[in-house]
Amino acid sequence: MPRIHMQPVFRPRSIAVIGASTRKGSIGWYVVHNIVSGDFNGNLFPVNLRAETIHSIKCYGRVIDIPDPVDLAVICVPKRFVLEVVEQCGRKGVKALVVITAGFKEIEGEGIALEARLLEAARRHGMVLVGPNCMGVINTDPEVRLNATFAPQGPHAGSIGFMSQSGALGVAILIIARQLGLGLSTFISLGNKADVNANDVLEYLEHNERTRIIAMYLESVGDPRIFKELARRITRKKPIVLVKAGRTEAGARAASSHTGALAGPDQAVTALTEQAGVLRVCSMEDLFDVLQALRGCPLPHGPSVAVLTNAGGPAIMATDAIIGMGLQMARLAPETVAALGAFLPPEASLRNPVDMIAGAQAADYGRALECLGRDPGVDQIMAIFVPPLLIDPLDVASAIREQSRRIDKPIVSVILAPLEWHTTIRDRIPDLPPVYLFPEAAAKALHALVTYASRRNRPEGKILEVDVDIGAVDARLDPARADAEGYLSPDRVMEVLVRYGIPVARWATVTSEQEALDAARGIGYPVVLKLAGKGIVHKTELKGVRLDLHDETELLAALREMRADFERLSRGAQLSGFLVQEMVAGEREVFMGVREDPSYGDLVVFGMGGKYVEVLQDTFMRLAPITDLDARTMIEGIRGYPLLEGVRGEPSSRIDILKDCLQRLSALITNHPLVIEMDVNPFMAGSTAETCKVVDARIRVRKD
Amino acid sequence: MPRIHMQPVFRPRSIAVIGASTRKGSIGWYVVHNIVSGDFNGNLFPVNLRAETIHSIKCYGRVIDIPDPVDLAVICVPKRFVLEVVEQCGRKGVKALVVITAGFKEIEGEGIALEARLLEAARRHGMVLVGPNCMGVINTDPEVRLNATFAPQGPHAGSIGFMSQSGALGVAILIIARQLGLGLSTFISLGNKADVNANDVLEYLEHNERTRIIAMYLESVGDPRIFKELARRITRKKPIVLVKAGRTEAGARAASSHTGALAGPDQAVTALTEQAGVLRVCSMEDLFDVLQALRGCPLPHGPSVAVLTNAGGPAIMATDAIIGMGLQMARLAPETVAALGAFLPPEASLRNPVDMIAGAQAADYGRALECLGRDPGVDQIMAIFVPPLLIDPLDVASAIREQSRRIDKPIVSVILAPLEWHTTIRDRIPDLPPVYLFPEAAAKALHALVTYASRRNRPEGKILEVDVDIGAVDARLDPARADAEGYLSPDRVMEVLVRYGIPVARWATVTSEQEALDAARGIGYPVVLKLAGKGIVHKTELKGVRLDLHDETELLAALREMRADFERLSRGAQLSGFLVQEMVAGEREVFMGVREDPSYGDLVVFGMGGKYVEVLQDTFMRLAPITDLDARTMIEGIRGYPLLEGVRGEPSSRIDILKDCLQRLSALITNHPLVIEMDVNPFMAGSTAETCKVVDARIRVRKD
Repeated sequence: MPRIHMQPVFRPRSIAVIGASTRKGSIGWYVVHNIVSGDFNGNLFPVNLRAETIHSIKCYGRVIDIPDPVDLAVICVPKRFVLEVVEQCGRKGVKALVVITAGFKEIEGEGIALEARLLEAARRHGMVLVGPNCMGVINTDPEVRLNATFAPQGPHAGSIGFMSQSGALGVAILIIARQLGLGLSTFISLGNKADVNANDVLEYLEHNERTRIIAMYLESVGDPRIFKELARRITRKKPIVLVKAGRTEAGARAASSHTGALAGPDQAVTALTEQAGVLRVCSMEDLFDVLQALRGCPLPHGPSVAVLTNAGGPAIMATDAIIGMGLQMARLAPETVAALGAFLPPEASLRNPVDMIAGAQAADYGRALECLGRDPGVDQIMAIFVPPLLIDPLDVASAIREQSRRIDKPIVSVILAPLEWHTTIRDRIPDLPPVYLFPEAAAKALHALVTYASRRNRPEGKILEVDVDIGAVDARLDPARADAEGYLSPDRVMEVLVRYGIPVARWATVTSEQEALDAARGIGYPVVLKLAGKGIVHKTELKGVRLDLHDETELLAALREMRADFERLSRGAQLSGFLVQEMVAGEREVFMGVREDPSYGDLVVFGMGGKYVEVLQDTFMRLAPITDLDARTMIEGIRGYPLLEGVRGEPSSRIDILKDCLQRLSALITNHPLVIEMDVNPFMAGSTAETCKVVDARIRVRKD
Repeated sequence: MPRIHMQPVFRPRSIAVIGASTRKGSIGWYVVHNIVSGDFNGNLFPVNLRAETIHSIKCYGRVIDIPDPVDLAVICVPKRFVLEVVEQCGRKGVKALVVITAGFKEIEGEGIALEARLLEAARRHGMVLVGPNCMGVINTDPEVRLNATFAPQGPHAGSIGFMSQSGALGVAILIIARQLGLGLSTFISLGNKADVNANDVLEYLEHNERTRIIAMYLESVGDPRIFKELARRITRKKPIVLVKAGRTEAGARAASSHTGALAGPDQAVTALTEQAGVLRVCSMEDLFDVLQALRGCPLPHGPSVAVLTNAGGPAIMATDAIIGMGLQMARLAPETVAALGAFLPPEASLRNPVDMIAGAQAADYGRALECLGRDPGVDQIMAIFVPPLLIDPLDVASAIREQSRRIDKPIVSVILAPLEWHTTIRDRIPDLPPVYLFPEAAAKALHALVTYASRRNRPEGKILEVDVDIGAVDARLDPARADAEGYLSPDRVMEVLVRYGIPVARWATVTSEQEALDAARGIGYPVVLKLAGKGIVHKTELKGVRLDLHDETELLAALREMRADFERLSRGAQLSGFLVQEMVAGEREVFMGVREDPSYGDLVVFGMGGKYVEVLQDTFMRLAPITDLDARTMIEGIRGYPLLEGVRGEPSSRIDILKDCLQRLSALITNHPLVIEMDVNPFMAGSTAETCKVVDARIRVRKD
């Protein structure tokens, strides 16, 4: 069941425009104008206290004066009248509101309270609320023909469902989409998202048959758990392309703890979109480049690109861009080379890029595309044309269009013609496959197709079921037993890990020299000695770690020195004893962390351990719960992964154990809302089960 | 003295077009047409065996039939006639040739020989040769008015000197520059660069007063030593922007040895351009974005950007892009905030970005820019305008233009208007400061301004004079004493390093157990034992390194084991003995390498050492000779630099020693052409002179 029923927003049978205006060019005029000139298939009722007629339509003073039922009310009255108007809509039985008026949460202060009252009124009357501070909604369905926005230019009808959190960008989106010949099925300006949010619209578009592609501009994601699940399901059927703005501003909110600093919110957005199968792009320009390709191309079966050109320079730049994006240059089959050689001049280059040189005619483009289209080693084609003298780019574009109808592979074009040519070509050749001005944009678009194709078809992965006594673990997580900041004592941390089936170096907590000696005997030398106590988080700075103690003499000496150092160096920390620990040999340290993020939920981070994690920031993040495939992606995704596989003949780390532990940590943070943050650092990533273990970890729980 | 005198190319008093044609639209027609319609200030003589008149001008059968002197001959006859025509030009006393005809080196095979003959003929007759396979030259100087190209559209006159190695891109460049209102002083299509190359043109443009900005599209750099010196000098006066294509194709040529693989040719181009002060951009799109800013803006004094907007969304994207490019968001002074608050509505946001909200008029843009321009904390301004209803973007653009005349800071605009608006705005408002469609392009352009400003003003740095007996070192580098691949024995390597004043762990080469014991006694325990011998390069794989041997027993045991392992594992390598070496304590290993590159000369590389250098590819490259500032940039430029400075309270490495050694290695490769390649790996980067030393190194010399 959807949270919100969007039908009255996108398919109303009657609309009231409250704040309709006779002043040409004003918002209240444009909304009425757009509804009328869009030939809305239903009744329109302008509402204005002071006008008799607007746009040749009878005008009502208040919405409750309208004799017929009203499904949707578009509100553009001054801010101070909004609440009153909404009450009237409620009494009238209006089903949905689109509030264009601004001055709510976005201006902070009193605006926040006003928005709360607006939402309360809408909910009380059972009305769906879009906005406030938005620019309206559009549905190009021929049966509906709704353009309830104040945009000066409406879109062509098409297959893209577009939502924008920014009204101003919404206007620009409609203009640019129109110019690029990108038709929309649906458009919605979300505004402040007081009620209807991006997830609600996603759910609607999922089932909207006219929508084949979903595009989103967002500044905040809303509930990421719902988004992830919804988007994962939808992207198996239709692509979602997202521009998420506020990448770096958000970065400034970096948390203070280690995991926090390593887990910038933007990395969380990347994790979220990758897990959900969403294509994330960084700018409006990239968004439109990608939308053109998704609209005009079939999905490719692989990453190999053939480049066809009539000039060397742009083809070299195309090759740079293709390789730079991580795609491959196709190796042409001998038959393809022979077929090309049969009609191209001897000066032509028959390797990829295929350079037909400046004399190539439109017909040559057609024949060459046919050859490349047949080659099983070619997954996608980029056709480049630099208009030489005497050859009309229009003819070449037509030839490319012809072939793109026959070849079931993406074909994108780069035509280095004047901008005017680009702004008019789509009027002259409808159904033209994507045409770009420069090869870099074309390569980005091809890369997006490959990425979407592979995400769409990838297996789901499995979530590990950890057999654990959740109640018993919760008892060990008791906040009352944590220190002031919420950190648990080392033995509690180790016990929790053991219960979750995570291998931990053998350990004992001790308070006296004799206990230390007994413990070490049980564990077996060499051992490690560590400080344990409340407020002791960065042990190294307190000289609180001694490694590789070989016998009783070394252990006792270390213990005494450490106690002395602690008394000298500690500032207010409380020494509750020591941890005697098995010495795990090996030099490969990795980091695993989980953390609760206020915006993105539970995050799981993997990275190179020790000091490298801080300096090189070589980490990979996923949102919990992670699957087995996510865990593998995380481990293989760090730059230092070859070090784990072993270089110079070294044995590989037990990647299987790392993978398993990451999933167990994911289960831990998911099962226990008490846990705010947990770092395992270092996890010794040895090549045997005996050397692949946690040697240090921290857990922080919620105090209050 | 310039290598080539470019005057007859760019300032001819008379031109012969050989291969002039009456066929409208052909190359031979367009060249004549462009010269005539460009109102060339000199005599034009069409040459064609079969025509009487071309373009109303008397036509000659051969260049030697022309009664007057000819400075420049533009040749577009079929390939088979080119040599004959060139001989005639020589006899005629022509001073310069522009050969448009293609089919030379670029088609390989017979084309290579043909080009050699063409060059030989030109040189023999003392003629400067542009091309072949080029599209011509342009000089917009009002006294010259030369357009000797076959481009369908010529450029406006202006201050940009443009050279292109690709003819096809040349056509596109002229079209796009014209649309963006970017005027050119000079244009040259370099073609195959048989004679005139990019450095020759750079030298000409250096002294060309009408040229304020130089733009280049290159596929190969030519002599990088000359380029570096020339460009360094020029960029103190005028900016150079370079698109270097063939980044990744070149990458495939990666050399086989370690340094080779770490030093991809593209990294060399980056080093070259950074050292030379050249702005490198990755695409034609970026090139034009940057040229607009360089043409239309003063240079900034710092990296702080103020964003002024009438809409939130695009300003957030601008902030992302600004921070993403490494620029800063300016902190506005309290007086600025107060001055803005005095006229902006209460809903406006007065922090940076300054959001004047949708009602902002052109006059508000003017006043706000004035306030921001006065703020000393603002170095640059980005003004964003999303056309709302009732406000004409033309008025806003005019207001911005007005302020840009008064404010001595870069002001760039982002106007989210239709493309048609952008393609016509420059005709309507001449002298408009740069206007972009999206904020990302504007941020890139601002970043380029900051980069150029800082490179232009940076100090030159000093090259260390190493006091060394070059002859004595050359004797140690004797190729006859190297192994088959050119590798020197370890003791020779160490001696060379010592002579260059590079600190090396104490060592001795030994062949017997007794010698080993004696050597270790002299060096002092603990010691390291290593295999030494021809063909032993990757010692680890032969188990040829034993660390931390504490006494005679351990040393002897290690020696015997190593000899046994070697006999078992070596394949054809020859054991000439062992190296006994001081054990240098410490865990920070760095890598230093120098290498001769066929295209880019001597390269110096610094990076994290040990296996990290291979896996993380954390390296920084400069071309030799490096200055003290280059050495500092290299060391501080690696991602792992904080590890060298010390984390978690560790002492810093002796950065001064590393810096000094890098400069000494640079001197080594510069002084000794015999050295092809040298790796120092690892260099232990300890915190004291005693622990900051080379422990392993290889030198490879030229064998023939």
